[in-house]
Amino acid sequence: MITAAIIGASGYTGGELLRLLIMRDDVEINQVTSQRFLGIQVGHVHPNLRGLTDLRFTSDEEIQECDVIFCGLPHGTTMNRMEGFLKSAPHVIDLSADFRLRTPEEYQKWYNTSHTSPQLLEKFPYGLPELHRDEIKAKGCAAAPGCIATSIILGLYPVRELVGKAIADSKIGSSAAGNAPSDSSHHPERHGVIRPYAPAGHRHQAEILQETGINVMLTAHAVEMVRGISSTIHVELNKEVQDKDIWNMIRATYKDEPFIRIIKSKKGLFRFPEPKILAGSNYCDIGFELDSENNRLVLFSSLDNLMKGAAGSAVQCMNVIFELEETKGLEFPGLHPV
Amino acid sequence: MITAAIIGASGYTGGELLRLLIMRDDVEINQVTSQRFLGIQVGHVHPNLRGLTDLRFTSDEEIQECDVIFCGLPHGTTMNRMEGFLKSAPHVIDLSADFRLRTPEEYQKWYNTSHTSPQLLEKFPYGLPELHRDEIKAKGCAAAPGCIATSIILGLYPVRELVGKAIADSKIGSSAAGNAPSDSSHHPERHGVIRPYAPAGHRHQAEILQETGINVMLTAHAVEMVRGISSTIHVELNKEVQDKDIWNMIRATYKDEPFIRIIKSKKGLFRFPEPKILAGSNYCDIGFELDSENNRLVLFSSLDNLMKGAAGSAVQCMNVIFELEETKGLEFPGLHPV
Amino acid sequence: MITAAIIGASGYTGGELLRLLIMRDDVEINQVTSQRFLGIQVGHVHPNLRGLTDLRFTSDEEIQECDVIFCGLPHGTTMNRMEGFLKSAPHVIDLSADFRLRTPEEYQKWYNTSHTSPQLLEKFPYGLPELHRDEIKAKGCAAAPGCIATSIILGLYPVRELVGKAIADSKIGSSAAGNAPSDSSHHPERHGVIRPYAPAGHRHQAEILQETGINVMLTAHAVEMVRGISSTIHVELNKEVQDKDIWNMIRATYKDEPFIRIIKSKKGLFRFPEPKILAGSNYCDIGFELDSENNRLVLFSSLDNLMKGAAGSAVQCMNVIFELEETKGLEFPGLHPV
Amino acid sequence: MITAAIIGASGYTGGELLRLLIMRDDVEINQVTSQRFLGIQVGHVHPNLRGLTDLRFTSDEEIQECDVIFCGLPHGTTMNRMEGFLKSAPHVIDLSADFRLRTPEEYQKWYNTSHTSPQLLEKFPYGLPELHRDEIKAKGCAAAPGCIATSIILGLYPVRELVGKAIADSKIGSSAAGNAPSDSSHHPERHGVIRPYAPAGHRHQAEILQETGINVMLTAHAVEMVRGISSTIHVELNKEVQDKDIWNMIRATYKDEPFIRIIKSKKGLFRFPEPKILAGSNYCDIGFELDSENNRLVLFSSLDNLMKGAAGSAVQCMNVIFELEETKGLEFPGLHPV
Repeated sequence: MITAAIIGASGYTGGELLRLLIMRDDVEINQVTSQRFLGIQVGHVHPNLRGLTDLRFTSDEEIQECDVIFCGLPHGTTMNRMEGFLKSAPHVIDLSADFRLRTPEEYQKWYNTSHTSPQLLEKFPYGLPELHRDEIKAKGCAAAPGCIATSIILGLYPVRELVGKAIADSKIGSSAAGNAPSDSSHHPERHGVIRPYAPAGHRHQAEILQETGINVMLTAHAVEMVRGISSTIHVELNKEVQDKDIWNMIRATYKDEPFIRIIKSKKGLFRFPEPKILAGSNYCDIGFELDSENNRLVLFSSLDNLMKGAAGSAVQCMNVIFELEETKGLEFPGLHPV
Repeated sequence: MITAAIIGASGYTGGELLRLLIMRDDVEINQVTSQRFLGIQVGHVHPNLRGLTDLRFTSDEEIQECDVIFCGLPHGTTMNRMEGFLKSAPHVIDLSADFRLRTPEEYQKWYNTSHTSPQLLEKFPYGLPELHRDEIKAKGCAAAPGCIATSIILGLYPVRELVGKAIADSKIGSSAAGNAPSDSSHHPERHGVIRPYAPAGHRHQAEILQETGINVMLTAHAVEMVRGISSTIHVELNKEVQDKDIWNMIRATYKDEPFIRIIKSKKGLFRFPEPKILAGSNYCDIGFELDSENNRLVLFSSLDNLMKGAAGSAVQCMNVIFELEETKGLEFPGLHPV
Repeated sequence: MITAAIIGASGYTGGELLRLLIMRDDVEINQVTSQRFLGIQVGHVHPNLRGLTDLRFTSDEEIQECDVIFCGLPHGTTMNRMEGFLKSAPHVIDLSADFRLRTPEEYQKWYNTSHTSPQLLEKFPYGLPELHRDEIKAKGCAAAPGCIATSIILGLYPVRELVGKAIADSKIGSSAAGNAPSDSSHHPERHGVIRPYAPAGHRHQAEILQETGINVMLTAHAVEMVRGISSTIHVELNKEVQDKDIWNMIRATYKDEPFIRIIKSKKGLFRFPEPKILAGSNYCDIGFELDSENNRLVLFSSLDNLMKGAAGSAVQCMNVIFELEETKGLEFPGLHPV
Repeated sequence: MITAAIIGASGYTGGELLRLLIMRDDVEINQVTSQRFLGIQVGHVHPNLRGLTDLRFTSDEEIQECDVIFCGLPHGTTMNRMEGFLKSAPHVIDLSADFRLRTPEEYQKWYNTSHTSPQLLEKFPYGLPELHRDEIKAKGCAAAPGCIATSIILGLYPVRELVGKAIADSKIGSSAAGNAPSDSSHHPERHGVIRPYAPAGHRHQAEILQETGINVMLTAHAVEMVRGISSTIHVELNKEVQDKDIWNMIRATYKDEPFIRIIKSKKGLFRFPEPKILAGSNYCDIGFELDSENNRLVLFSSLDNLMKGAAGSAVQCMNVIFELEETKGLEFPGLHPV
């Protein structure tokens, strides 16, 4: 039995970790923390879990010893607490951005602040098993990737050798911005939008560059959806290729990956990836179209930002670390229609 | 030229009043107030009005003299300011609940606080021209009705003599709750809901009873929509009637009303009222079905909560008071599809 | 290993049955039929199942022998085929309306056609284990209930002794109308509606009366949602009761039921049942508010129309028939936020 | 008084033309045609117009003489009828694609069929007054532009001299696909999607190239929205520029245009164009962000596909042709919130 704690468990990522872990017979959650909901039952905040657990939120000031800590604290806070967490558990999977970049210089550049625990960076491989499975297993820790970054990295990675330039146009659901109300999340304002934000210079570009070697130009849009990310990646090719070349490269890279599907169909409704049918699942669906006339490759990559883009990848990392079946607890296939 | 001020103009009702008034050639807006957005351009807060007006928000501490004040302050605040407003303008149209009920006792009962200006109540007829046209004209003031109440009153009024009991099941868009973000208005939580609130004892019951004489039992639900109210009113009939009796009663009551349409069709998609096509319009669409086997009449009443349920009725009252064409500035027919 | 066939498996209910059954280690699906998609892979029609199964649709003209048949054919068709199905499998769980009513007379009255297999009616208990568990087990067959009916029956059943009159105002997602495009399901027309349909005389009233003894007056509305039903049941009480009486009655009835939760909270966002968080789950959430002043009880009942309202109940019946853990394969708790 | 006919008036564009024209005091509609709804009242099909007009649909086989014909027939059909229309009216404004391209060769290339009336092409200037005002006036006819093309052309036109390469990533509402139900428009399938379609080779590229001289690579996505288009145009700049250069170029081009607004704000919610607030309005809102580090310009262009992208531009062309105030009948500013 693996004992686990979730720090910062009242947020949306925390709720998703709880959904994934409470019904497992090989994991026991011994602590969930929330400063805002101290003493409150989990089901009061995460209504889908009502009746399924008696857990109550505790303070994060005292962390009990356990096998693995999932840390869902905000960016900038986590790095100050990490030394402590590593004393309470041999394994920590962090969901903030604090340990995703490999050097304190990069962190400083993109987050405009000094990294307070640079000596710990090397303990945290970038938490995509598809790229860093062995390292995650070896180090026993992971920094779960950014949600938009995940969609773009997994799309580009197999064809990275072909990329001249790449522009990513991402569409993102409202849950990616967290559970704190604001003017921009107010329903009358957020409903039905296609709202550009971060039109240039999005921080996830740093992760994408680090993992693929490509300086992707990312423009992000808030759209009418709660869960889900769809990234359309417009690639200027550096040489001529054919459809089957792309097929082969993606297949070769991901042939044994349980959570990556190639979606490309000549007919039917579902010819390319769509995030709608992925809600709750851990898949990243990847598709493409070759625009040969313009030497352009259009990649489509979709996932659930709270799953493959956060909690799902985190649990997948846990499975890797504990040498379990990698799909364990992540079998939910998504709903249709929904 | 009618000079007008809008007090509390940064809210959704204030924005709608602005949309209705700024393009009129017979109205000049000489003041719009907002404490939060002091000095800011109107188009910054109401993006649909960008480029159409140079107005900026001022403080409401000093009200300039004008012909008519539209007051969009919160419930409970308005009654403390009304004496002052009436010194600045001969006509005041209030959009709060403070002057809707006829007696301070009723106000106390439903709003749990004493009315601070009971002597002014008699100056404010209930602002539905369909029921109080002459009085509104005579008094020169009006208390614009509650949005849910409007839908139910206009639906029930023509058949009030037939009502044994009445239960109203209302579905309401998110704009009715105003522009202040909260946990309940946070997009990930508010999106896609059918969320019961105020299952019993809703304050609008007081207005409905006052205007129709019927103790309607109201249950309200927040639904996925920004603008719009749809009330289904289940009426236990006190005598046997036929379809044509209902038709006749509604027609007789509303035959000269420009903003009430009877919607009842045996075929096609649009057989009953629907709020979707009413966004931006001042219509209240009314339809019905007779459930003869059960001696039940099902009334359907739909409107735009910011229009017929607030700003539209207020402008209609202004037109009445100034003896203008009652439809002036309210001609927008709604969009389809949308 | 239980062998199963799904007849009419390309519809939404068929897809949901597939989702529930393909990953079970105790069930083997040996046939899925669809006349429209003959020979096509399941994942082409149900995109959430891509990569999870190699099944292809076959004709329903030849049914292979198996342990249990799930029949998802249209109303009126099923009764003509049932003799045949019962020759191919000892257990049949029907999802049409053909075997829900206990007598051919009732069927004739509500469906305007003669029942062609009245002799089989007694083989099919109404498929709600909460009411007919023993009979379902004894007979080995079941007629899965109507989706709206399920929400109303489960809400009313515990308090049926208290009901004077009952009016149900139901709000229903678009998937309940099936997968055939029509003018009314066309996205520009269906998006954002609150569209009354079947304002009186809905066929599900027959099932509700049969199961609860109450002549519920049902008015149904199409709303903006794909999955989900929310029924608000306005009950005129035949005697005075208190909150705790209602609590006790519901608890007593459902205390051992794994798929029924009482949702009634004095604070927080989630004070009453909401279908949004139930998508994909087999729960029916029930809540209430006592309107003592008016001797009215307001019941709220929510579920996923494709799960507890169709495929979920069907699989639950299968579990009952085969004496398995009743929750097996139905453990998905729903998502939040979504 | 201008007499007008609308051919193919039961579609969404036809309905929008009706909304814009029926309330004008200088236009009289003397014929609206629909083969499907022969003899039916307009308000039965366009529910927002109920009670506002007594017009009924007639056959398009006999066209009455009038001053201007708006032609809303399908692509490929219109060119066969145009000679006839020009005999019935001196002015024709066509909303199909048949007369948008300047040569029969281009038409053949993009529409895979021969143009049957090539001699008429020169009569139809491309119907964007912003680019072809004088020619539209001189010729008295116009070919209203494609909806996606309009958003991209108006965005790119002012900066076309700076464009090295341009990729357009467009997001489109469901009304753009017309009013015929299909599997892809079925609400359960279309709700909540971000669905790539026409990932390369979209026909509107032909219009864009013709009007801007730029070979834009367009990828279109269906998104959750009924009305509206948002195009994000990623431009590789051919020289270094600064923010104010772009400002100046757009302002210089559009300074006298009544329907083009530059939307670019450093703070507030509404920093870039969004289609949501444009429903029903004739605006095209244009904004941008300079990604100097990557020598990229990101242009945002939003409009209502049925208005500036179809019927609105058509009416604007009529106003130009008849030398009326160009904004006449097009003053609706859009709603907020909605």
